[in-house]
Amino acid sequence: MKVNGTHYRSLWWDADKNALQIIDQRWLPHDFRVQQIDTLTEFADAIVEMRVRGAPLIGATAAYAMALAMRLDPSDSAMNKAWEFFNATRPTAINLRWALNRCRDLLRPLPTEMRASAALTLAHEMADEDVEVNRMIGVHGLEIIREIASKKPAGEPVRLLTHCNAGWLATVDWGTATSPMYHAHDADIPIHVWVDETRPRNQGALTSWELGCHGIDHQYITDNAGGHLMQHGQVDMVITGTDRTTRRGDVCNKIGTYLKALAARDNNVPFYVALPSSTIDWTVDDGVAEIPIEERGQEEITHVQGRLADGSIGTVQVTPDGTAGGNPAFDVTPNRLVTGLITERGVCEASPKGLAAMFPDRAEADAA
Amino acid sequence: MKVNGTHYRSLWWDADKNALQIIDQRWLPHDFRVQQIDTLTEFADAIVEMRVRGAPLIGATAAYAMALAMRLDPSDSAMNKAWEFFNATRPTAINLRWALNRCRDLLRPLPTEMRASAALTLAHEMADEDVEVNRMIGVHGLEIIREIASKKPAGEPVRLLTHCNAGWLATVDWGTATSPMYHAHDADIPIHVWVDETRPRNQGALTSWELGCHGIDHQYITDNAGGHLMQHGQVDMVITGTDRTTRRGDVCNKIGTYLKALAARDNNVPFYVALPSSTIDWTVDDGVAEIPIEERGQEEITHVQGRLADGSIGTVQVTPDGTAGGNPAFDVTPNRLVTGLITERGVCEASPKGLAAMFPDRAEADAA
Repeated sequence: MKVNGTHYRSLWWDADKNALQIIDQRWLPHDFRVQQIDTLTEFADAIVEMRVRGAPLIGATAAYAMALAMRLDPSDSAMNKAWEFFNATRPTAINLRWALNRCRDLLRPLPTEMRASAALTLAHEMADEDVEVNRMIGVHGLEIIREIASKKPAGEPVRLLTHCNAGWLATVDWGTATSPMYHAHDADIPIHVWVDETRPRNQGALTSWELGCHGIDHQYITDNAGGHLMQHGQVDMVITGTDRTTRRGDVCNKIGTYLKALAARDNNVPFYVALPSSTIDWTVDDGVAEIPIEERGQEEITHVQGRLADGSIGTVQVTPDGTAGGNPAFDVTPNRLVTGLITERGVCEASPKGLAAMFPDRAEADAA
Repeated sequence: MKVNGTHYRSLWWDADKNALQIIDQRWLPHDFRVQQIDTLTEFADAIVEMRVRGAPLIGATAAYAMALAMRLDPSDSAMNKAWEFFNATRPTAINLRWALNRCRDLLRPLPTEMRASAALTLAHEMADEDVEVNRMIGVHGLEIIREIASKKPAGEPVRLLTHCNAGWLATVDWGTATSPMYHAHDADIPIHVWVDETRPRNQGALTSWELGCHGIDHQYITDNAGGHLMQHGQVDMVITGTDRTTRRGDVCNKIGTYLKALAARDNNVPFYVALPSSTIDWTVDDGVAEIPIEERGQEEITHVQGRLADGSIGTVQVTPDGTAGGNPAFDVTPNRLVTGLITERGVCEASPKGLAAMFPDRAEADAA
C-alpha cells in the first residue's frame, strides 16, 4: 500500500541499521510515525501496547523478536525464555504462538552459532509468506464480490461492511478482510464499504485511513448502525477478519463481531470471515466454551484518543470519575452464523468438514 | 433523584423568574449546569442540540415551550406556527408530537386571553403525570426483577443490561428503563447494571452518572460487549427505553438496540422495553417499513466529547480528515424479539393483541 506516494509494507527490515522498522499505529490515522525496534522490551511493548496489531502482523513481529533474542543470546534457555516472554504479550492471538513455535522448531536443532542468522532469515520468509497468503485471500474473496456485483444493476456498488481493522495495517501487506476489497477496487468493481468504528480502540479509523489512501469509497459508522443498515438492504456482504478460528469454524474476533453476524443472519446478508490458515487453532472445537477472552484495561473504555483542536494527539474522559469499565476485547461467533471462510487456499464452509477438506494436511497434523 | 445532596427533577418551573429551568445535559456527566429558557429559539435549541433529551422529557419541554408561545402571542396562527416549529425539532420523537397535540387540543377552544395560563397549568400537569407514569413503570418492572432474583442464590445480584439513557435525565423523574432499577435497589434487591456506552453520543455516561449518584453497582461497557456477556451467562435481563412503539409492539429506540435484542434472543435472555404509553404510535404497524429514521450530523461520529486533561470539556477527532460518517440515530426492534413491554398500567406482550388489551381506550381512539 502507498502512504504519501511511497509503497510501504507495514513492517520492514532495515539492513543498514540491522533493525526492524514498524509503524507505530497508536498515532494513526493522525500521524504516520515509524519506529525502530532495538530491544526485546521494545518488541514486547510494541505488541502489548498495540503499536503493531492484527494477528498476522503480530506473528511477523514475533518472528523478528525471536531473531533479536537469538542475536543477543542463542542458548536454549534464552530461546525458551524469549518464547515465554513474547507468548504472554497477547494471550488471544493464536498467530503469536504459531509464529513463536515455528521459530523454536527451526532453531532448536541448530547449533547455537547458526541460530541468529537462521532466525532472521526465517522472519524475512514469514513476512514474505504473509504477503502472498493475503494476496491469495484477496483473489478468492474477489470472486464472491464479483458474483454479487453480477446480480446488481451495472455501476451500482457492492456494499460491504467490515468490523475492526483486518487490513494492510494488521498484516505485512494487503490485509485479510480488506484484501478482497483492494482486489475488487483494482478490478474496477465499484464497492462501498461501511466501516464499523470498532470501540473501544476505534480501529475503524485505521480502516478508513487505509481505504481512503487507496481511493475506496467508504463511510465510518458506529458499531450500533450495522443492524439497521442490514434491515434496510444497505449491506450486500459482511467481511471480517479473525484472531483465532476453531477447527469447526467458530471465529474469535474483535468484540462485537458476533452482533454483526447475528444481524447478518436475521437479514439474510452473507457473513464471510477472511483468514490466513495460521489463525486456525486445530486443538479447539467450541470457541465460546474453550477460548479465554482477554479482558483489557478500563481506560480503553472510559477514555477516547484522537486529535485535539490544536492538532496534537490527546484523550478525553467520557465517563464520570470513578466509573468502572468492563472491557472484553474479543467475542466468538459460532460457525452456524458464518456463511464461509475465505482462506489462502479458497473459500470453505465454516464446519469441521469444510475446514478439514481444505486443509487435510494441517487438520490431521495439528489435531494429533 | 439527588444531585450533590439536593433533590432535583430534570426540569422545573421557577415561579419567581417565570421561566423554565433545565439541566443542560451536554455537559454531563462532567459538569452540572442549569440553564434558564427564556425564548422560543432557546426552547428549540434545547431540543435540537439535545440539552434536553429522552422522549418524555422532550414532551414536557415542548409543553412548556407552547406555554411560552401563548404568553408571547395567544393567537391561533401563533399557536399553529409554534406547533410546526417545535414539531420539526426531532422528527422521531413521538412524544414531542403527542405533547404538542395535547396542548393544541386544550388551547384551541379557549378564548385567547385564557390560553397563556391554561398552557402553563397543562405543562405543570404533564410534568407531574410523567413522574407518576415512570413511578408506575418502576413498580411493574420491579416484579420482573424480583422474580429473577427469587431464582438466584441469595445475595447474588440480578444483572441487567441497558442501552442509552432511558433514565431520570430522559424523563422528569425516575426514568423509564431505570425506574425498575431504582425500585429494585430501594427494595434491597442486589442488582448489577451493564451500561452500554451508546455511541455516538455516549449517553451511557449519563446512565453511569445517574446510577452512581444513586449508589447502584454498574459497569460501563462498549456497545460491542453485550453479546459476549450474554453468551457467557452474565446478563439476566435487558431493559431499554423506546422513542416510539408501534401498535404491534415494534420498538424504535436508540441505534443499536436491535443488535442487543438479537443477542438476547440468541441466548435466551429476556428483553424488556419500558415505556410510557405516550410513546405508542397507534397509527403505525410495521416499524421497520414505516418509521423514518433520523440521520444526524457526521461530526457526532467522527468526534468524541469528553473531559480534557486540564478539566475543561473538549472534543477529539477520531477519524482521518475527510472521512465521511453515516449516522442513523435510531433503529427498530421487531416485536418478535421483545419479551414484554413494561408500561405504567402493567406488563404486556409486544403484539397488537397485547397492547390493545392493555390500552383498549387508546387503541381504538387513536387508530380511528
